[in-house]
Amino acid sequence: MTIDLLPGERIDDLQRNGYRIIQDPSRFCFGMDAVLLSGYAQAGEGARVLDLGTGTGIIPILMEAKTKAAQLIGLEIQKESAQMARRSVALNDLQDKIQIVDGDIKEAGQLFDAASFDVITCNPPYMISQHGLQNPDSPKAIARHEVLCTLEDVIKASARLLKPGGKLYMVHRPFRLAELMVVMHDYKIEPKRMRLVHPFIDHEPNMVLIEGVRGGKPRMTVDSPLIIYESQGVYTKELMNIYYE
Amino acid sequence: MTIDLLPGERIDDLQRNGYRIIQDPSRFCFGMDAVLLSGYAQAGEGARVLDLGTGTGIIPILMEAKTKAAQLIGLEIQKESAQMARRSVALNDLQDKIQIVDGDIKEAGQLFDAASFDVITCNPPYMISQHGLQNPDSPKAIARHEVLCTLEDVIKASARLLKPGGKLYMVHRPFRLAELMVVMHDYKIEPKRMRLVHPFIDHEPNMVLIEGVRGGKPRMTVDSPLIIYESQGVYTKELMNIYYE
Repeated sequence: MTIDLLPGERIDDLQRNGYRIIQDPSRFCFGMDAVLLSGYAQAGEGARVLDLGTGTGIIPILMEAKTKAAQLIGLEIQKESAQMARRSVALNDLQDKIQIVDGDIKEAGQLFDAASFDVITCNPPYMISQHGLQNPDSPKAIARHEVLCTLEDVIKASARLLKPGGKLYMVHRPFRLAELMVVMHDYKIEPKRMRLVHPFIDHEPNMVLIEGVRGGKPRMTVDSPLIIYESQGVYTKELMNIYYE
Repeated sequence: MTIDLLPGERIDDLQRNGYRIIQDPSRFCFGMDAVLLSGYAQAGEGARVLDLGTGTGIIPILMEAKTKAAQLIGLEIQKESAQMARRSVALNDLQDKIQIVDGDIKEAGQLFDAASFDVITCNPPYMISQHGLQNPDSPKAIARHEVLCTLEDVIKASARLLKPGGKLYMVHRPFRLAELMVVMHDYKIEPKRMRLVHPFIDHEPNMVLIEGVRGGKPRMTVDSPLIIYESQGVYTKELMNIYYE
């Protein structure tokens, strides 16, 4: 299949199912957090999955490869990103399984039927403050800072769109862990599982993966830590498995 | 100093400042959780410190050794435990610094002046369910199960008794982490720091140490994991330091 690339775009190999993805480094490239989230999230056979703020579409594409989900929808507010994600879906011939929808997370509750998803994923902007942002409208600022949507917007939309017992998977920064749990609980998406990601075994974690269940009871599992590097520049076996297995 | 021991009681060496403690194995012996909590909790020079549900008095005694706190009070509802803790305080000649007060955590807000403590510590009962308890009135049941007080009772009392900016330190089980954070936040004791304790580096954590600040802002630090065993039966260097340094 021939796919048109815009100036500045490139095609990267995802090392999985032969899938590839279009990215524009001047806009935003997906990071390890998206890969870890797609490895942490579980979707059963026939599941209907929504990715809030899908960007390049990396999470639906990886989850299509890793799960037996029936339908994966990526919602994206930035039109250029949505178009690029749509071209990546076509590049992998996945149009039957993955749809990229233009739209705002804050309006997601109206865009889709209530209680219609088994799984929601989100790799949201991590930073609260917009102070000192040179270009708050830039794609990088929108991906990293809560310019267009807040943590509460994501969880509020998920609470409306998940089926009872449906699961929300997020990746976030540990400094917002308490807030993450409090807001999930407030919207009746109970934190049921979490895993901290540490660059090295003796370092503070720099990411947290969390699973919430709509209407779940308050009892959770904390997993063993996920360690990125065995030694400087050498990934752990587990990380290699998440990327390539 | 001569201290009377009751039948079944023994004196254990705390390996710190020459301090010793009276325990009765048929009632309850302090565990590693109490030692880790007293190592995690910080108290500045001149601080006024309260330990809720002090049991043997282990936490005030260890914190007297490790910090420059001016006054440490242990509150205990079980009269026999309080008397035993009082004898341990006398055994170490610490009556000027440590007071053991008889009383109920649920009434702690009335027993002490509001906003009068810099630091509160608590190693609470971990288990919610009282189902299947053979002897719900036994000291072990009271120490392990929420028979006489709940997590919310502890945090509610702390919210009243801590000075603004004062710190609550707790140890708990990870399965209640979300609830812990939610209730702390609800009572305006913001979770500011936490550390997970893992028996081995590749195991799930079995304890969590947490610091909340009364009136703190919602941004927290997650510490590197605390690992108990280097290999089977061999403590890590850090654990040895907490016990003996």
